[in-house]
Amino acid sequence: MSNDPLVVFTPSGKRGHFAKGTPVLTAARQLGVDLDSVCGGRGICSKCQVSPGYGQFSKHGVTVAQDALSEWNSVEQRYQDKRGLIEGRRLGCQAQIMGDVVIDVPAESQVHKQVVRKRAEARDIVLNPPTKLFYVEVLEPDMHDPSGDLERLCDALRDQWELENVKADLQILQTLQPALRKGAWKVTVAVHLGDDENPPRIMHLWPGFYEGSLYGVAVDLGSTTIAAHLCDLQTGEVVASSGVMNPQIRFGEDLMSRVSYSMMNEGGAAEMTRAVRAGMNTMFDEISAEGGIDKGLIVDAVFVCNPVMHHLFLGIDPFELGQAPFALATSNALRLRAMDLDLNIHPSARVYLLPCIAGHVGADAAAVALSEAPDKSDDLVLVVDVGTNAEILLGNRDKVLACSSPTGPAFEGAQISSGQRAAPGAIERVEIDPVTKIARFKVIGSDLWSDDPAFEAEIGASGVTGICGSGIIEMVAEMRVHGIVDAPGLIGTAEQTGSANVFADGRTNSYLVYDGTADGGPRITVTNRDIREIQMAKAALYSGARLLMDKFGVDKVDRVVLAGAFGAHISPKHAMILGMIPDAPLDKVTSAGNAAGTGARIALLNTSSRAEIEETVRNIHKIETAIEPRFQEHFVNASAIPNAVEPFPILNSIVTLPTETFNTGGDSSGGTRRRRRR
Amino acid sequence: MSNDPLVVFTPSGKRGHFAKGTPVLTAARQLGVDLDSVCGGRGICSKCQVSPGYGQFSKHGVTVAQDALSEWNSVEQRYQDKRGLIEGRRLGCQAQIMGDVVIDVPAESQVHKQVVRKRAEARDIVLNPPTKLFYVEVLEPDMHDPSGDLERLCDALRDQWELENVKADLQILQTLQPALRKGAWKVTVAVHLGDDENPPRIMHLWPGFYEGSLYGVAVDLGSTTIAAHLCDLQTGEVVASSGVMNPQIRFGEDLMSRVSYSMMNEGGAAEMTRAVRAGMNTMFDEISAEGGIDKGLIVDAVFVCNPVMHHLFLGIDPFELGQAPFALATSNALRLRAMDLDLNIHPSARVYLLPCIAGHVGADAAAVALSEAPDKSDDLVLVVDVGTNAEILLGNRDKVLACSSPTGPAFEGAQISSGQRAAPGAIERVEIDPVTKIARFKVIGSDLWSDDPAFEAEIGASGVTGICGSGIIEMVAEMRVHGIVDAPGLIGTAEQTGSANVFADGRTNSYLVYDGTADGGPRITVTNRDIREIQMAKAALYSGARLLMDKFGVDKVDRVVLAGAFGAHISPKHAMILGMIPDAPLDKVTSAGNAAGTGARIALLNTSSRAEIEETVRNIHKIETAIEPRFQEHFVNASAIPNAVEPFPILNSIVTLPTETFNTGGDSSGGTRRRRRR
Repeated sequence: MSNDPLVVFTPSGKRGHFAKGTPVLTAARQLGVDLDSVCGGRGICSKCQVSPGYGQFSKHGVTVAQDALSEWNSVEQRYQDKRGLIEGRRLGCQAQIMGDVVIDVPAESQVHKQVVRKRAEARDIVLNPPTKLFYVEVLEPDMHDPSGDLERLCDALRDQWELENVKADLQILQTLQPALRKGAWKVTVAVHLGDDENPPRIMHLWPGFYEGSLYGVAVDLGSTTIAAHLCDLQTGEVVASSGVMNPQIRFGEDLMSRVSYSMMNEGGAAEMTRAVRAGMNTMFDEISAEGGIDKGLIVDAVFVCNPVMHHLFLGIDPFELGQAPFALATSNALRLRAMDLDLNIHPSARVYLLPCIAGHVGADAAAVALSEAPDKSDDLVLVVDVGTNAEILLGNRDKVLACSSPTGPAFEGAQISSGQRAAPGAIERVEIDPVTKIARFKVIGSDLWSDDPAFEAEIGASGVTGICGSGIIEMVAEMRVHGIVDAPGLIGTAEQTGSANVFADGRTNSYLVYDGTADGGPRITVTNRDIREIQMAKAALYSGARLLMDKFGVDKVDRVVLAGAFGAHISPKHAMILGMIPDAPLDKVTSAGNAAGTGARIALLNTSSRAEIEETVRNIHKIETAIEPRFQEHFVNASAIPNAVEPFPILNSIVTLPTETFNTGGDSSGGTRRRRRR
Repeated sequence: MSNDPLVVFTPSGKRGHFAKGTPVLTAARQLGVDLDSVCGGRGICSKCQVSPGYGQFSKHGVTVAQDALSEWNSVEQRYQDKRGLIEGRRLGCQAQIMGDVVIDVPAESQVHKQVVRKRAEARDIVLNPPTKLFYVEVLEPDMHDPSGDLERLCDALRDQWELENVKADLQILQTLQPALRKGAWKVTVAVHLGDDENPPRIMHLWPGFYEGSLYGVAVDLGSTTIAAHLCDLQTGEVVASSGVMNPQIRFGEDLMSRVSYSMMNEGGAAEMTRAVRAGMNTMFDEISAEGGIDKGLIVDAVFVCNPVMHHLFLGIDPFELGQAPFALATSNALRLRAMDLDLNIHPSARVYLLPCIAGHVGADAAAVALSEAPDKSDDLVLVVDVGTNAEILLGNRDKVLACSSPTGPAFEGAQISSGQRAAPGAIERVEIDPVTKIARFKVIGSDLWSDDPAFEAEIGASGVTGICGSGIIEMVAEMRVHGIVDAPGLIGTAEQTGSANVFADGRTNSYLVYDGTADGGPRITVTNRDIREIQMAKAALYSGARLLMDKFGVDKVDRVVLAGAFGAHISPKHAMILGMIPDAPLDKVTSAGNAAGTGARIALLNTSSRAEIEETVRNIHKIETAIEPRFQEHFVNASAIPNAVEPFPILNSIVTLPTETFNTGGDSSGGTRRRRRR
């Protein structure tokens, strides 16, 4: 048994004996305890704060005396006077071990901090960004042993931080000499720690000790919206978030029209590339201003996007993505320089693009896989990212399958007669009265139901303007539950349905939701054509999921995760009545919000997650729905509401769907037309 | 014993048994025989031509029958019809082994061809450039197993050429898809094979089989002149050479004045950086035009230069190089992208800068070390690169030492009263008549001596304009031999020297070389001040060499190599009379021409030589003359002609130097002033 004092670190539980006088930081390093330090133990950075515990620790078998650590020293006193230490804290690099002691490393003193995510079921993000700060003291030049300033800086990084083979960008060489001299041969260096394509590389340096932070952006580059999070790479915090329209919209609302634009116009792809990069730079300006930081401190950027945006952003003509076999120029993850993409952030900033899964399942789907981790799930999870194309993942620890399915824009309110984007005034919640068969609803911007006396007054400014995607889903599901629409998707007559709101509308019937014409507002109806659009969209989604279930060899899934901003607003019950998603317990249908954006943030903050998702994507089995014969069959079955053949037992235990049909020989075949991908 | 036929390859002597029907190329690859192929054995490139030998080969113990190889096939016939094969040649990929055979691989079919250098004593260059061509057949995209076109191209490179982990620049991604389709999934790819900072990377690709070559430039970036060789990377040949003035000259003739310019003028360093890069681009335009190639095919560039040019070219302010301790921003070799230096060659072109040895011993000295390889010499060699600064290397297999010494510009004809740059009309050879003590001379542009009756007519156009560096060396040496200048460097009176050409010139004497004033030409004289300048220059050079000899622990060297364009014109005898170089057998004093440029060419053509010179430079022991007390002592001794203390026994066995001195109490102490570095 050693006579040296015993040190126990919590929460890791790592323990060891150290000679009296050993600094706590030294002990932590020797034991591999995750205790941060930027200044390397020189009492400058205060990142190594620890909380010693005193008294009896029976769990660890240690009794800690009051003098277990050395007395408060002048460095700690100076820090206390200047900035203040939290009560009970010590600087790990100053406090020396004098007796048995239990040392707690608070979360903020850990290098690999856990960044907590809001959703209870989501794994925390381990903070481990590729670029970190290191304070070093560099040897001065010596004519007897001439070497470059850079080489001596690299020697310091090797000797003081065990960083081997560090290189520097040209712009570092151009600023190195004055910085070293201004800092009296003490500098803080931002080092990108390297990856499989690059050795470690100095990104930036500051004379003396740099007290600031480094930043990164996680960007979800959507066809419509560019959403970004500006993150502090030292704390993992989101400093600012931003969402701007993708300036490419002027070249076409959906992706196929942008591909067409590039085909029809010489230089069109390059024009769209310039537009999206310019949009990105505007966004960087805005988000930096909002976060109150210098955008030159953004040293890393992670992008997720669908394959067409991926190619256009990189300056690759998306021509091949517009036709079978939908060949990507590259599918692997990309490590680039921000400069090569004309991005005006730090001149040495890096860019990471997540891998694409297939020609229609992009880096955005990979990011969803990183965020929702079906490959780490014990139960079988279906992850659906609902958008103009739905990306669908199905899997568990054993295997993950992926496909995309062309849902079309109906879920975004497009191609629906009273449809609109989600915005104040849009109907988002619907309930039909079982007796009167009249709908009441809520609109975005108000919590009141439309039959509340205060409703009209409260929504005054926006009025009722239309139905958004989640509204139309609830609408159609409610119509189905209350016998206004039958299983094949036909709206009955007022007589058949018993609803005074149904009216004959040409060869079919329509349902009146809201009549604001008296006040100059819209008349909002659901036409049978609207029902058909929703049927096609949901059938595409369901049949993609069902195809993956076939390939997996299962008839049911344990849980369903709805990803995408839209997914966050869908009512699980209504989605299941519609037959959008497979039958599952309602409490097992959850929303992940913008999972693609979260995946981008994980990849930004945790460099290990990059190799991880690349490996995951390599192992994902891709299914191309276009060449799967059963897809068509599933699509036809899924056109019925909820489904012509699937039993949906869990759904049927909750609601009883009318079995009556309204077919009187007219159009009732359901929307079996396939649409091409958007 | 195998019953399979025996194949013996010459000149390697590698041998082995192979099943009948094995193509010669396959056998060569399995034995590790250096047989080239770009198309991978598909009968397209014709790089694998071999010469089978028939009959009795007693040395190899083989008798080769006429049917030892398969008959001429249709691929060979087609090649013969289209381009013609040299008599007796076969295509190694087509000819199959049918019986015992001896196969000669001609030099041009070897991958690692030897590029022969002109000088007998110089090692040949092994051709092994970092970028090579590979023809591949790529799998078409498959919707059942989606992957990017790049990933399938990389798979092809792995499967067909054993190239692992190949990456691509962004610009390749932007051109990849149309090229693959245009070439019907067959492409030729230029791959940079990677180095310690970079994985292998695709530089360029061509649809189908590319019949052209790739090019590189080796640039010696001097203070005055930029000299470049454009080389074919497939053959090693120099396609064109170019020399242009360094446009930085307008900021200052010598390096110190450029450093001053950058110190005195805000943005001056950046201005000089722009100037030299622009000059480089002009040079690339010219050299490509001269070589008749597209400059976009220049994929590699190697630069050697002194430390100040090195920094200015890289955009680093050379401020620190202007003052002790002469700290380089970086001393290691640099691997950069041409784009980062604003060089308009191939967009993915690489740049390699050789390492600097010390603050005054630059990448040019490293290139001399690579070319002259003192570290591989069995005998002790002194390598002197004579310029405004002399870089001096001394060493053998055991050890190499290096220093620089501030010779000043006297050897370039500057600061000499009648001095000029080497140009037509400049005196370059001198002989003084032992009896009349009158000089005769030759000028650049003529082979006649000045006492030849046809001389005046022949040089008519240029006239006699001044004395260049090599001329002044011979002049002073001849004056010393013939008793016009004494050992301390004093010109005697006409009476003391017995020369009618000596005349009193203020407080000292001068020597008339040529009087062209009657025809409106110059009066060319050597003043005692000129002698002092030459004394200082040669003393600096000698004392640097002598210091290295001290450090090495020797009193003599086995051989002396004079490098630099100037070195090529120095008469070894006169240099030794002057005491510029240590005493050595005259036939052991040779000229290496532009050894720095040759070193750049070696680094360009042979990628292995880069790691080699980096290792060599790491092991070179640098001596800083400025802080060596003995340097001053050596300098004072070396001010005498040839030397106040060194015996020069070999020199004395060839010439007898007068011992008389002219000191009459006036200025005769020899030039012991030190000059600052240029």
